Amino acid sequence: MLAELKQHVCRANRALAEHGLVTLTFGNSSGIDAERRHVVIKPSGVPYDKLEPDHMVVVDLEGSVIEGDLRPSTDTPTHLLLYQHFEHVGGITHVHSRFATMFAQARREIPCLGTTHADHFNGPVPVTRSLSQVEVEQAYEANTARVIVERFAQLDPSEMPAVLVAGHGPFTWGRDAAASVENAVALEVVAEMAFGTRVIDANAPDLEQHVLNKHHERKHGKDAYYGQD
Amino acid sequence: MLAELKQHVCRANRALAEHGLVTLTFGNSSGIDAERRHVVIKPSGVPYDKLEPDHMVVVDLEGSVIEGDLRPSTDTPTHLLLYQHFEHVGGITHVHSRFATMFAQARREIPCLGTTHADHFNGPVPVTRSLSQVEVEQAYEANTARVIVERFAQLDPSEMPAVLVAGHGPFTWGRDAAASVENAVALEVVAEMAFGTRVIDANAPDLEQHVLNKHHERKHGKDAYYGQD
Amino acid sequence: MLAELKQHVCRANRALAEHGLVTLTFGNSSGIDAERRHVVIKPSGVPYDKLEPDHMVVVDLEGSVIEGDLRPSTDTPTHLLLYQHFEHVGGITHVHSRFATMFAQARREIPCLGTTHADHFNGPVPVTRSLSQVEVEQAYEANTARVIVERFAQLDPSEMPAVLVAGHGPFTWGRDAAASVENAVALEVVAEMAFGTRVIDANAPDLEQHVLNKHHERKHGKDAYYGQD
Amino acid sequence: MLAELKQHVCRANRALAEHGLVTLTFGNSSGIDAERRHVVIKPSGVPYDKLEPDHMVVVDLEGSVIEGDLRPSTDTPTHLLLYQHFEHVGGITHVHSRFATMFAQARREIPCLGTTHADHFNGPVPVTRSLSQVEVEQAYEANTARVIVERFAQLDPSEMPAVLVAGHGPFTWGRDAAASVENAVALEVVAEMAFGTRVIDANAPDLEQHVLNKHHERKHGKDAYYGQD
Repeated sequence: MLAELKQHVCRANRALAEHGLVTLTFGNSSGIDAERRHVVIKPSGVPYDKLEPDHMVVVDLEGSVIEGDLRPSTDTPTHLLLYQHFEHVGGITHVHSRFATMFAQARREIPCLGTTHADHFNGPVPVTRSLSQVEVEQAYEANTARVIVERFAQLDPSEMPAVLVAGHGPFTWGRDAAASVENAVALEVVAEMAFGTRVIDANAPDLEQHVLNKHHERKHGKDAYYGQD
Repeated sequence: MLAELKQHVCRANRALAEHGLVTLTFGNSSGIDAERRHVVIKPSGVPYDKLEPDHMVVVDLEGSVIEGDLRPSTDTPTHLLLYQHFEHVGGITHVHSRFATMFAQARREIPCLGTTHADHFNGPVPVTRSLSQVEVEQAYEANTARVIVERFAQLDPSEMPAVLVAGHGPFTWGRDAAASVENAVALEVVAEMAFGTRVIDANAPDLEQHVLNKHHERKHGKDAYYGQD
Repeated sequence: MLAELKQHVCRANRALAEHGLVTLTFGNSSGIDAERRHVVIKPSGVPYDKLEPDHMVVVDLEGSVIEGDLRPSTDTPTHLLLYQHFEHVGGITHVHSRFATMFAQARREIPCLGTTHADHFNGPVPVTRSLSQVEVEQAYEANTARVIVERFAQLDPSEMPAVLVAGHGPFTWGRDAAASVENAVALEVVAEMAFGTRVIDANAPDLEQHVLNKHHERKHGKDAYYGQD
Repeated sequence: MLAELKQHVCRANRALAEHGLVTLTFGNSSGIDAERRHVVIKPSGVPYDKLEPDHMVVVDLEGSVIEGDLRPSTDTPTHLLLYQHFEHVGGITHVHSRFATMFAQARREIPCLGTTHADHFNGPVPVTRSLSQVEVEQAYEANTARVIVERFAQLDPSEMPAVLVAGHGPFTWGRDAAASVENAVALEVVAEMAFGTRVIDANAPDLEQHVLNKHHERKHGKDAYYGQD
């Protein structure tokens, strides 16, 4: 079942390594089918360059394995809950890419300092609160999704397709797995440039709101004119 | 039309990726024909490794597409206005390369701290002012060129083939598209080394003016003796 | 003799270069046989891309060469003594990878700031004391192992498969040579991210102990559920 | 003439690019023949991946071109004078590698903070004084060698095969061109790790003298036991 989605998700996971976003086996991408009943996700702990579409695991929204010989990613419960809450999201990526993770470890949002950022993220990239001991012990991976959803109480996941989990690393999303990988790539570049900008000047100003709006709108707004139709 | 120029500009755009200056599709190179009537530029949002000469878009100086099936780069109006004002420029490159963009985001010029810089840029690389809300809303891409031209009121674009647009990133130019890419490569190295030098010593001195002059002259002056004839 | 182990250790040494952990010939991996009588180690000063299984040197625990035409790594006495003291260790790697070495040179432990760290190392990665002049002059390489063992008086090498030798660089270990290389890869990433986190915020907090425990346990504990069986 | 030396020097120059020490055409290696009468050096401004042995230029110690169709490197007079003063040196390399150049631009010596450094350089890597305006105008490239020689009044070039020219970049040397490239590789790593160490702790201590001596001696002393015979 879901042969095309498995191929798409497999390619997205391999792209994580090609873009230098993952080391060893730290990272995973998933995609949900159009009916939002099944999620295809990377198997746990398998090297990226060995991944084939047949290795992908199909789970339902309760996390039961529907198809696949391998155990799904440890982070599967996080993906599943995000799909349930963020209803326009078709693909999710989690990596420990270096600069985004530095901000997550410093528990600092990534400020919007330039147009590269504005092209992808409509404002500073938020960071969650820490999980309590009870939250960690009872349902760590599901509660990781819950603190993300909590952080998005006032945010629109379509406008802000990324979050930093405190002390952990980024999750990104998009219309499909490939789009979530593209956002993970953009997030890492944006994090690196924010890092360096603040080394040059600790008080470097945020991008002016009118420039932020313009860049975001020309790429994502209803009259977008970036790219091809 | 302009088959040779399309090939040249296509090769220049592919070189952006080969030199590591671009991520995803953030960057573009263009070239103008000898009569300065037509500009060949990268199509918007197309990956570098897929670019073929036939994908290049030909526009006139008013921005009308003369030839090509794809939409030209969103930054086309910036390129066009720069060609109109900088009459000895034959090629222009815009990228969001990391270290040059950090300086642009910090709204700091890149100081001339060594001979690598002096070999390419005759003095500190300037940064523009920010665009006002009106400038952004009325004609963002054209006004981006206008703040560059304004910044060059007292500067010679032949001596200083680069600028940082505040909160955005670098534009470079040269006698043709390939030369503008070479200047983008040099700018990124120079930015990285200036960054690191000032981390080692926040008060590291500018290069002595007599060394700057010597290096610039031996490569670009009328008695230049660097390279082959 | 030990044909399989030589192949494994050769592959581990070549992997050091493939992972970018070594420059020139700075680094070596070794493995011990199941009877813990013979150690297979890289020959000294041979480039990684030229290494073949037949180049590997077999030494006994006193350091006598049992088989092999080349001189074993200069660091052989360090490896041997560590095998004698750390009885569950099957493979050891020593590199001068950049960020781990920066912490070793700064004589600072690598703090546990995030889950990437917790996935591999159960707490901050310790740093040894310096060797005295007498220790250096009498038996430098063996005494390097002794200061490591001394540092582990209160630590379990199975829970903490890495150490920084002050002013020198990291040693890592594992159930075999490949596992010790994997830990060297993880250590370098973790060091780089700790470095950057503390640049963003010099007071970035340690990871909460309950999150550290959770991540370490889900990967290494008796009820581990990360990876495949 | 000198066919073997041309091949060796060509390979050394190509290695500069393979090791990531050069960008565009910033850097060159040379070698001197056994009689110390002729120097083989890279032609000026030619890309590394296009270099063939026949492109190498043969010059005598006065700088006259003896063989070769191309103009020799602009830095030829610096190489020639160094060969005249440093009589045990058989090969010289000049690059603008990033971290070594940052120290040169900051006009700071590279402190010896660890054993990687001690394995290659017997103490801190020195930096020259700046050239005066007269020195630059009269004979810039030859005077670059003179400030290096002046800086080595109390230093042995066999023990310290590297120098930083203030505001410019490193020169390294060795028994032949390949050895000078190897020292340029080591210098860059050592510079990067010194940079990072001092970011972690601005007061990170120098390596203990007894460890420095041990590492340098075990690799370069008369009883060296590193590498193969």
